[in-house]
Amino acid sequence: MSLLEITGSLNMIGYAIATIAPALGVAWIFASVINGTARQPEARGAMMSTAFIGFAVVEALAIIAIALAFVL
Amino acid sequence: MSLLEITGSLNMIGYAIATIAPALGVAWIFASVINGTARQPEARGAMMSTAFIGFAVVEALAIIAIALAFVL
Amino acid sequence: MSLLEITGSLNMIGYAIATIAPALGVAWIFASVINGTARQPEARGAMMSTAFIGFAVVEALAIIAIALAFVL
Amino acid sequence: MSLLEITGSLNMIGYAIATIAPALGVAWIFASVINGTARQPEARGAMMSTAFIGFAVVEALAIIAIALAFVL
Amino acid sequence: MSLLEITGSLNMIGYAIATIAPALGVAWIFASVINGTARQPEARGAMMSTAFIGFAVVEALAIIAIALAFVL
Repeated sequence: MSLLEITGSLNMIGYAIATIAPALGVAWIFASVINGTARQPEARGAMMSTAFIGFAVVEALAIIAIALAFVL
Repeated sequence: MSLLEITGSLNMIGYAIATIAPALGVAWIFASVINGTARQPEARGAMMSTAFIGFAVVEALAIIAIALAFVL
Repeated sequence: MSLLEITGSLNMIGYAIATIAPALGVAWIFASVINGTARQPEARGAMMSTAFIGFAVVEALAIIAIALAFVL
Repeated sequence: MSLLEITGSLNMIGYAIATIAPALGVAWIFASVINGTARQPEARGAMMSTAFIGFAVVEALAIIAIALAFVL
Repeated sequence: MSLLEITGSLNMIGYAIATIAPALGVAWIFASVINGTARQPEARGAMMSTAFIGFAVVEALAIIAIALAFVL
């Protein structure tokens, strides 16, 4: 007797893999801001504006993966 | 005799992989706050506000995975 | 003769993978508190409150995996 | 009875793998800018222009992957 | 009933793996330029010309992968 009930989509696994690097990358960027704030608190404004640019371009790769998971 | 009873969904594995990086990333952010607090306790407020922004955008990738696990 | 008796669910493997990063992440957070306490013992209260916030949001990802293992 | 419902595309997994390194790389570049800003805030302009060149050539590899996911 | 709808090309996965090292490598090169600029801003011109040579030879490996994904 063979009962093989596996459902699901490879696209879900694809989205999951696509979150690995953006999540670590965005965390890296904000951890750098936090470390930089601990070292030099008055430069926090300049660091935050840099962080938001970096956050946008890195997070975009994961957001694109959501769209691709539906159309592929 | 072949008894092969494997059930389950690939989406569960997808969600599991999708938790790896957000969990490590959020932990990285809060560990940076804790290290920063140990080095410079008076900057904790500025670091916590940065950490919550970072936490929100990183954790969102895992929360989106929950939704995708149902619709894919 | 081929005897293939494999039973089980892919969801169990999914939960197992979903514990990797939250476990490491929560350990990272509390290890940072311990290191910070060794460096600056009087800041332990502030660090512990930060750690509990981080612990809650990281551990939640693993707790959600328990629920998803049943419904998926 | 064998219920095997797996859908999806290998190209989604390919895009997912292709985001790993660009996302980490762009995060690396911007984290370097943030660390450099914390160390020497007046050099932020020169660092940002370098970062945007690096960001463009690294992110391009992930953007190309989007196109390839459709045509392959 | 067996519904196994997996499409896609192994070449896409090949291109994806081929981006990992070039993307990280180019990011490494530009992060070094940024770190070097933070430490010694007047040497930025010499560092940038070195970085562009390194960028060209490293990125070429990923660009070649695009061509190979079509002809293989």
